Amino acid sequence: VIQSRPMTDINSITHPADRLLAAIDSKRAPVCVGLDPVVEKLPVALRPEEEDDAESIAYAMEEFCFEIIEAVSPSIPCVKLQSACFERYGHHGWISLQALIQGTTQEKMQIILDAKRGDIGISAEHYAAANFQDIPGIGAFAPDWLTINSYLGEDGITPFLKHERHGAFAMVRTSNPGGDAIQNLRLQDGRTVAQAVGELIASVGAGFVGERGFSSLGAVVGATKREDAARLREIMPQQLFLVPGYGAQGGGIDDVLPCFKSDGAGALVTASRSVIYAFEPNDPNWMKSVADAAAKFADEVGQAVGNR
Amino acid sequence: VIQSRPMTDINSITHPADRLLAAIDSKRAPVCVGLDPVVEKLPVALRPEEEDDAESIAYAMEEFCFEIIEAVSPSIPCVKLQSACFERYGHHGWISLQALIQGTTQEKMQIILDAKRGDIGISAEHYAAANFQDIPGIGAFAPDWLTINSYLGEDGITPFLKHERHGAFAMVRTSNPGGDAIQNLRLQDGRTVAQAVGELIASVGAGFVGERGFSSLGAVVGATKREDAARLREIMPQQLFLVPGYGAQGGGIDDVLPCFKSDGAGALVTASRSVIYAFEPNDPNWMKSVADAAAKFADEVGQAVGNR
Repeated sequence: VIQSRPMTDINSITHPADRLLAAIDSKRAPVCVGLDPVVEKLPVALRPEEEDDAESIAYAMEEFCFEIIEAVSPSIPCVKLQSACFERYGHHGWISLQALIQGTTQEKMQIILDAKRGDIGISAEHYAAANFQDIPGIGAFAPDWLTINSYLGEDGITPFLKHERHGAFAMVRTSNPGGDAIQNLRLQDGRTVAQAVGELIASVGAGFVGERGFSSLGAVVGATKREDAARLREIMPQQLFLVPGYGAQGGGIDDVLPCFKSDGAGALVTASRSVIYAFEPNDPNWMKSVADAAAKFADEVGQAVGNR
Repeated sequence: VIQSRPMTDINSITHPADRLLAAIDSKRAPVCVGLDPVVEKLPVALRPEEEDDAESIAYAMEEFCFEIIEAVSPSIPCVKLQSACFERYGHHGWISLQALIQGTTQEKMQIILDAKRGDIGISAEHYAAANFQDIPGIGAFAPDWLTINSYLGEDGITPFLKHERHGAFAMVRTSNPGGDAIQNLRLQDGRTVAQAVGELIASVGAGFVGERGFSSLGAVVGATKREDAARLREIMPQQLFLVPGYGAQGGGIDDVLPCFKSDGAGALVTASRSVIYAFEPNDPNWMKSVADAAAKFADEVGQAVGNR
C-alpha cells in the first residue's frame, strides 16, 4: 500500500507538486473529485430560490460545491473546479468561484481550477496574474493548480510557472472522442503529436522540479487513452498526470494504472459525475451518499495503485 | 479596390461571417483593432482614481476601451477584446467586459472576444453558453465571435457553432515564437500539424457556411507566419482568417497578404499596441492620435489588399 506520511502542515509546503503529493499521502489516495456543478442536478434542498436569476443560481452552485468539499474531504485530497460551469453565470459565477477557492484552506483540500487557459506570451502573463496574483481589493484567486493549453508552445506555458506556490497542468492527451483527430497523428519521426507535446512539457517543466522529483508543470492525460499512457509516462518522468475521464466518461481502473510510476506516485485520477451526483435529488442525506461514493472511489484507486 | 456595399442594416444579418464581411465592406478595410488594455499604459486623463482597487482599474479600462471604439469606428469594422486583460481584475473585469460588449451595437462595431476557450464536449457547451446564451438577470454576453482551441478536436469545437448569430475563430497557427514547436512539426504524410488542424477546421466548418461562402468557424493564422499562410489559405477556402501579429509583433503588409483570397476577401488583420497606444500619456488629444493611427492602419491594409 502507499505509505502515509503525517500531514503536519500542508500549507507550509511551497512547491505545488510537493504539496499535492503530501495531500495525496495524507489521504492515501491519488484521486481528485471534479466539481462540474449544473443547476438542474442540484439536490432539491439546494435549488436556487430564484430560477431566473444568475446570482441565485451561482450561489446555489457555490453552496453545493462547499458541501461536496466538506463531504469528500475525509477521503479526497484534491478537487477540480470546472470554470465553464461558473462562467455561465457571468460575474456572479466568478464571485462564487472565487469564494470557493478563497474559502477552502490548502490543508483541507488542494484545488485545481480547470479553465484550460492559454495564449501568446504577454496574454499568458495576464492569465497567470489573473489566477495567481493578488487582485487589488479582492485578494488572490489562487487555485493551487490551473489547467492550460500547450498548443502555443513554451512562451505560452512558462508565464504560468513563475508563481512559486502554483502549478499548471498542460493538455497533452485529452479524454474526449475528438481528441484523436489531432493528438494521435503520427509525425515523420514516429512520435504522435501528443508524444511531441509531452516532450515539450517535460523539457519546459524540467526547470521547476520540487523535492520529490515532480515539476510544477504537470500534464493532462485522459483515462480513456490507456494505450498511450505508458509511453507518455516514460516521456514525462517528472510530470504529475491529471487523469480525467474516470467513471462517467468510461475510464476504468486498468486504464489509469499506466499513468502511475512503479512506486505508485505520479498521477491524480479524477472522477466527477459518478461522485458528485451519487444521490437521488430528493435524498435528505445526499451528502452521505456523495461521501460514500468518494470513499469508494478513493479506496478503489488507492488499493489498485498500492497493490500493483 | 474592394467594392463597398451600402451598410443598410448590419444588425439584421444573422450569419456572423456575412455580418462581419458587410462590416468590412462598409469601412473598406479588412482590419481589426485589438483591445489589450493595461492600466500602466492608459492616458493620464483616464488613470483610475484608486490605484489599489480592482473596480476602479476595471472601470478605467472600460472607459478607455469605449473611447478607443469611438475613436477608431470611422475606419475600423471590428475590435478584438483580450479577455485576459480583464480577468486580471476578477469579477470587476468581467463586469467591464460585459458592459463593453453589451454597450456596443453590431452596427457600430463587430466584436471578437479573444478568450481562447475550449474543453471536451460538455464543458465546451458550458463555455459556448457562457458567451452566447442569455444569462438570467444579466442578458447575453454575446460577442459576435469568440476565439477557441482546436487541440481537443471536433467535439470541443462544434458546441461553439450552434448559436446562429455567433462564430468562432479556432487557433491554427499562432503568431508567437513558441508556436513552431508543435504547430510546425511534420507529419508522416508531409503535412504540418497546423495544416492538419486546418483541414479539421475546414471539415468541421463546412456545415456552417453563410451566403458569401464563409463559415461561422474561422481560423487564427498569425501574421508572422507568412511562409505558411498561402498553404493554409488553400486548405481552408471557407474560413475567415483572424490574423494577429501585425505591427508590434513584427508582421508587415507582405506577411498578411497571403491570408487573403484573390478577390481580396477572407482575412481580418489585427493590430493592437501600434494603434491603441499611439499617443504620449499626457496627450490631451490622445483619441485623435489613436483615430489617426487606426485610419492609417486601415488604409495601409485596405489599399494593399485592394491593389493586389
